[in-house]
Amino acid sequence: MSAIPVNDSAWAKLVKSNIFIEFIDTTLRGCSQVMFQSNPLTGLLFFVAIFIGAYTEGIPAVAFGCLLGTAISTFVAYVSIDDRKSLRAGLFGYNGCLLGAALPTFLATSPVMWACLVLGAIVTVIATISLADFLKNWKVAALTAPFVLTTWVILLASYSFSGVMGAHLPAPALPHEFVPTVNSVFDSISMLDAMFNGVSQVFLFSSIIGGIIFLIGLAVESIWAAVFGLVGTLLALLTSVVLFADPGSINIGLYSFSAVLTAIALGSTFNKPSWKVFIYTIVGVIFTVFVQGALDTTLAPLGIPTLTMPFVLTSWLFLVPNKDIVPEHRK
Amino acid sequence: MSAIPVNDSAWAKLVKSNIFIEFIDTTLRGCSQVMFQSNPLTGLLFFVAIFIGAYTEGIPAVAFGCLLGTAISTFVAYVSIDDRKSLRAGLFGYNGCLLGAALPTFLATSPVMWACLVLGAIVTVIATISLADFLKNWKVAALTAPFVLTTWVILLASYSFSGVMGAHLPAPALPHEFVPTVNSVFDSISMLDAMFNGVSQVFLFSSIIGGIIFLIGLAVESIWAAVFGLVGTLLALLTSVVLFADPGSINIGLYSFSAVLTAIALGSTFNKPSWKVFIYTIVGVIFTVFVQGALDTTLAPLGIPTLTMPFVLTSWLFLVPNKDIVPEHRK
Amino acid sequence: MSAIPVNDSAWAKLVKSNIFIEFIDTTLRGCSQVMFQSNPLTGLLFFVAIFIGAYTEGIPAVAFGCLLGTAISTFVAYVSIDDRKSLRAGLFGYNGCLLGAALPTFLATSPVMWACLVLGAIVTVIATISLADFLKNWKVAALTAPFVLTTWVILLASYSFSGVMGAHLPAPALPHEFVPTVNSVFDSISMLDAMFNGVSQVFLFSSIIGGIIFLIGLAVESIWAAVFGLVGTLLALLTSVVLFADPGSINIGLYSFSAVLTAIALGSTFNKPSWKVFIYTIVGVIFTVFVQGALDTTLAPLGIPTLTMPFVLTSWLFLVPNKDIVPEHRK
Repeated sequence: MSAIPVNDSAWAKLVKSNIFIEFIDTTLRGCSQVMFQSNPLTGLLFFVAIFIGAYTEGIPAVAFGCLLGTAISTFVAYVSIDDRKSLRAGLFGYNGCLLGAALPTFLATSPVMWACLVLGAIVTVIATISLADFLKNWKVAALTAPFVLTTWVILLASYSFSGVMGAHLPAPALPHEFVPTVNSVFDSISMLDAMFNGVSQVFLFSSIIGGIIFLIGLAVESIWAAVFGLVGTLLALLTSVVLFADPGSINIGLYSFSAVLTAIALGSTFNKPSWKVFIYTIVGVIFTVFVQGALDTTLAPLGIPTLTMPFVLTSWLFLVPNKDIVPEHRK
Repeated sequence: MSAIPVNDSAWAKLVKSNIFIEFIDTTLRGCSQVMFQSNPLTGLLFFVAIFIGAYTEGIPAVAFGCLLGTAISTFVAYVSIDDRKSLRAGLFGYNGCLLGAALPTFLATSPVMWACLVLGAIVTVIATISLADFLKNWKVAALTAPFVLTTWVILLASYSFSGVMGAHLPAPALPHEFVPTVNSVFDSISMLDAMFNGVSQVFLFSSIIGGIIFLIGLAVESIWAAVFGLVGTLLALLTSVVLFADPGSINIGLYSFSAVLTAIALGSTFNKPSWKVFIYTIVGVIFTVFVQGALDTTLAPLGIPTLTMPFVLTSWLFLVPNKDIVPEHRK
Repeated sequence: MSAIPVNDSAWAKLVKSNIFIEFIDTTLRGCSQVMFQSNPLTGLLFFVAIFIGAYTEGIPAVAFGCLLGTAISTFVAYVSIDDRKSLRAGLFGYNGCLLGAALPTFLATSPVMWACLVLGAIVTVIATISLADFLKNWKVAALTAPFVLTTWVILLASYSFSGVMGAHLPAPALPHEFVPTVNSVFDSISMLDAMFNGVSQVFLFSSIIGGIIFLIGLAVESIWAAVFGLVGTLLALLTSVVLFADPGSINIGLYSFSAVLTAIALGSTFNKPSWKVFIYTIVGVIFTVFVQGALDTTLAPLGIPTLTMPFVLTSWLFLVPNKDIVPEHRK
């Protein structure tokens, strides 16, 4: 349900009248599905935030890759998928969207990189169907796992292929205990940065304005999603500070972005908001921060980022239990 | 079935009369479930062994953590689980029990460590439900996987958080071929130590007396479990000696504890003892030693211990096959 | 269906008349199943190729291990499996066949190594049943996963046990970006070598003659399998050259062998050949090369080879999707 029915109504007529407009609508919804919404206006606001963020950070390829990835995945789904309802909801677009943002973020821009992006966007559609089929027995969604797994394959492969150059990949290294260089972690934390960067970091960049636009985009479709997104980033910030994580990573939102998604997923998307669900979500968000720290350690020797896997793993863990703990957690 | 029905009967009346006594009974059964039994006396003997072991090794926090972890998991199950039969059998307590022993063993004692223990014990209950649901299609139990996965997350995360300090974690290192420093591995093996430490090491410490008390605790509930436990530790000891493993690790029981659990699980808990089952169990126990060696290598770069994962993986592998190989292997 | 019905007919009578001949027939079929065929002549040609390759490379133990592994797995299946149809088709032999070739390839020959080979061949049968049961919900086959997982366990364990010595295992090392030492990767590629070594490398050795005999063996049973095998090795060669992979690895077929299996599996075994299937197979083959590069990076710190896991993972990913993308993909 959109909060702006009039526009939506006019837009809805346009969408029905023209397959190209419908394709644009589906692509925008694909982008909005990154945060579990199906709303073209939300998707448009998300793309605006992504372009602002990418240009601010001086890497426009990220924004164009994101747009291209969403469009290709959506196109592949159009020519191969029978399930029109899921297709129109944007459920085949969001993984390509994130892969399209991730590859130009971590790899050097080159024709081969763009070819990888096209191949990767195609594979995310296949992986979406595969994982949905794999998970259907447990009634949980694939979430962003198709994006993470496909992107990991390409990033890991970049070490083997000199035709695909890593640009901003962390250097492979054995894990070592983090020791803070400053006396107090608290002093070096910037609340405002950490909070909103935690939201924008879902799309792999740090931007306060970007984070605010994402939250507005969420609110357009669902107030609860925006509220839980905010709760998620705040609680993750607090948890990582209590655990004395690296302040630099906290400030650019690296401990919050997965928690934001866990909070929206557990709190509003797959469960009806209630006190019981709220407590369950809080435990899930705190545990996401631990899974983030754990996956950072696990992937250190391989030189790849966690992407949104901490969110995926924690949410699967917390969504599979049935009514024993959380009633009505399934759509 | 208890071997001492009179005590049990008196105790059973007490348990029925008072919810606090029932909670204690459930907590004790939770501890006994670490070795697949549901018997409060077995649990009590196990706790006695744990306290003796912890005080002998000078780390009482391990024993108190173990008690606390079992109690918290059991409590969380009481307030959230509808399945009273599994709850009363202690099936929601044993993973918290092991996590409660593991965290103070590998992490420095601190308020944050205790907070991690509480969070971890809560998460093991959620993980138990998740994994049970995940595995129900193959009719295999979650075994100690909820403990291993939750503990791994917290131990791995300790490298990222300076608020959670590793104390006895192995330093992350690339694997290298083990080369014995002595002429003969045989000379440095102490049969008696290796055998009983292999049993006590299930609870992460080395103690001959502890190992003997654990076996007595098993025998109280099931003679077959005690017999297979003994067979498991002996056969694993033999296998690791033939393979020329590190004698130091053999002596403190590191090649036996998972094999002990595999032997009890395959030999008595999930299959009815018979010659066919006995041979199948022997293959499983020997393969557990290989999986132990393999997981040691795999986890070396990450600086975390295998915990009981070699037992979990081997038992899943050997329990899934149906009557084709082992008749009646399922309860 | 065999292309030589007369021979087959005479052989078929012999097979029916004598359990020993039947056992030999089943063992040969087990070898042919490595490339998805069930044909004793194909298996015989494969063994001929393996013996030629092993003697040419000066490691006859590989050929005898391969023969022994197939025979043991087949024998274990005979005494324990009720499903005679799968058994007679050779479906319990091919994993032992590959394990039998792999262990002498990577480990030093010794009595303990041969004992590991026997144990491993037994475990592949158990793993085959386990994995088949695990995967039956998604209607995909276990493929060569039982071989890969069992062999990985033994190779990883070799680092822990001085009684099992690695001989040709890659030294554990952190991944680093491959930088070509020559000006042009193209100049150092030998098309002919790379193409046929890519086929023979399925059995872990490089041999042009071996590769050709394997293709003939395939053609005896299925022309399409031979065609797709050839398409797979060529396309993988092309992909790895475009991506500027290490020319040395390309020449000995390391980027092609998994792609060969993916091509046969997706193109002819599990789907009926058609243009739609052909395009789908091409995407699968190209992605297999990425998964190969990714797994090489992932396993670098552990010092073990990928074996055929890139084929297994890619094929599972591409075989699970149902008729949405590929009609009739399931047998």
